[in-house]
Amino acid sequence: MKQKLIFTNIVGPAIDDLVESLGAPQAVVVADTNTAHFVLPILQNDSKAVASAKVITIKSGDANKNLESLTDLWKQLSDYEATRSTVVINLGGGVVSDMGGFAAATFKRGMRCINVPTTVLAAVDASVGGKTGINFAGYKNQIGTFTEPDAAVISSIFFNTLPPQEIMSGYAEMLKHALLENQEILDKLLNYNPVYPLLDTAGLLPLIEYSIGVKARIVEADLTEKGIRKALNLGHTAGHAFESIAYRRRSPIAHGYAVAWGLVVALVMSHLELGFPSDTLHSFASYVRKNYGVFDITCDDYPAIVEAMRHDKKNVTADNITFTLLEAVGKPQIDCVVSPEQIGAALDIYRDLMGL
Amino acid sequence: MKQKLIFTNIVGPAIDDLVESLGAPQAVVVADTNTAHFVLPILQNDSKAVASAKVITIKSGDANKNLESLTDLWKQLSDYEATRSTVVINLGGGVVSDMGGFAAATFKRGMRCINVPTTVLAAVDASVGGKTGINFAGYKNQIGTFTEPDAAVISSIFFNTLPPQEIMSGYAEMLKHALLENQEILDKLLNYNPVYPLLDTAGLLPLIEYSIGVKARIVEADLTEKGIRKALNLGHTAGHAFESIAYRRRSPIAHGYAVAWGLVVALVMSHLELGFPSDTLHSFASYVRKNYGVFDITCDDYPAIVEAMRHDKKNVTADNITFTLLEAVGKPQIDCVVSPEQIGAALDIYRDLMGL
Repeated sequence: MKQKLIFTNIVGPAIDDLVESLGAPQAVVVADTNTAHFVLPILQNDSKAVASAKVITIKSGDANKNLESLTDLWKQLSDYEATRSTVVINLGGGVVSDMGGFAAATFKRGMRCINVPTTVLAAVDASVGGKTGINFAGYKNQIGTFTEPDAAVISSIFFNTLPPQEIMSGYAEMLKHALLENQEILDKLLNYNPVYPLLDTAGLLPLIEYSIGVKARIVEADLTEKGIRKALNLGHTAGHAFESIAYRRRSPIAHGYAVAWGLVVALVMSHLELGFPSDTLHSFASYVRKNYGVFDITCDDYPAIVEAMRHDKKNVTADNITFTLLEAVGKPQIDCVVSPEQIGAALDIYRDLMGL
Repeated sequence: MKQKLIFTNIVGPAIDDLVESLGAPQAVVVADTNTAHFVLPILQNDSKAVASAKVITIKSGDANKNLESLTDLWKQLSDYEATRSTVVINLGGGVVSDMGGFAAATFKRGMRCINVPTTVLAAVDASVGGKTGINFAGYKNQIGTFTEPDAAVISSIFFNTLPPQEIMSGYAEMLKHALLENQEILDKLLNYNPVYPLLDTAGLLPLIEYSIGVKARIVEADLTEKGIRKALNLGHTAGHAFESIAYRRRSPIAHGYAVAWGLVVALVMSHLELGFPSDTLHSFASYVRKNYGVFDITCDDYPAIVEAMRHDKKNVTADNITFTLLEAVGKPQIDCVVSPEQIGAALDIYRDLMGL
């Protein structure tokens, strides 16, 4: 793994050390409208590199992760006469690191890049692993690269002002990593809630560090997603389909919540197809139901769900819909072909478990 | 080196074998308006993969290697529902392989890619080494990646219809590779002319194969141009400056011709700064003068030439202009700092050697 991971709550000096060790003569901060307002001023006080950096602000929200914003980003890098040695510091959530990372990967064929995630989801997911890109022609992440940043600085100091839903959203990806790793860490996560009874970002940081370690090991084995990296897609096939159904109902759901519900569906399938233990399935489903609520579907939604799965680039091989499933906690199987009938059977049980 | 190099004049079957070995279910041919008209029909007869491929045609010429053409290319790949397994076959010169290669490197974070160069210049330069990209905001290749294609199929069958000037343009890059390699191959090239007294594409192919081997070894050692790959910039610092002067005079010169004259300047500097042997300098300069003619400059042009060198991203470190020079044939030194006064002295001698 090329990417350096630094876990610290003393963020400014950590950034300065990195910029110096990269030999970067200048820095450019990419922030979104929120982080430019709330987070940037803190770091400008704490880091010489950030204080003297040019700041490029992009509009927040996934809808702005598009070619127009990217072109503006490239243009500003050109006007600033950035070079290959200039370091891009992505300060924000996944939209910032995806698009800032893609700009850094492609401007003059590649600049230096550091991710400073400001959400739990970005910390455990987008900031590590080198997926960069933009949405294009109606498809998510249609254009992009696999380019690991030089480093990520992971801190919990930015999480104190996040809404609880945002933190739980990131926690769902941590649950996924635990399912891919071992029972002990899974039990720990299922006996904990980072926002109840009190927001506990200090307790969250070591769990995040562990969680990123799981992802980093998988990415190291398969950066360009030709094999085992697909394990990270666990829960996302059903999750993306739920997101797409919710979008059509005009009541979008948070990505992490969709993943939490999608993980329940994946564990049901894992139980049916590969004998995943039923007690773990039940304790997982009850944690999700209690802490994420339920995503409401009826059997009338099944055809649309199957159709959405068929249009997801990651899980279609020839004409088959494929899933990442688990034989047991820590034992993923990628590319499992599941028929529409089997998907329907799994959704039936999901509804039972969710009390629908 | 990831990239497979195939030298053959039986191009269609070679492409089919490659497409099969890549396990690509479908192919997309990227051609320009010229190659779509003159070359594509030949290959459609000879290759099943090309015959059944979707064809995307871009306008020929470096001025069209821009974001607008790229966006159209991405859009057509989306509409065609291309996947990561789809293979892009770039059929053309450097504009096609640079832009088609960049689209392939970034669509869905990376597709398969084969280059089929149709010019000598593209064969010995753009088709090998993984530089992809587009011009942006007035800068050449401002946006791009280092992404090696899966393979290049190099053939001389496309060269028979090229104008002699086009062939000599590619031959200049071969002279550069010979200077970086050894005296024996240099002597061979200096005692040969591929277009005089007769066009000799058959004699050219083994020389091209040798020349690509030189480049491939350098690229393998340093794909992302952090060190020794800069040796390939030999002759290009003065060459690019000449191109930019010619452009302002509204009488543009072919890239390869600019490189040939730029190589003479580089050898003069190499002689002055590093003791490059004067007899080799003289025989090289006389070959260039005889076969490429001369690029006419006076001392009034010197300030503009120095200024153009200063704006070339590849050869500026801090405030210094740097050159790749040669101690001797086969012994490059990168990052040689040369002052404006020394540049002027070298240009004086260039003018003497060219009879100006």
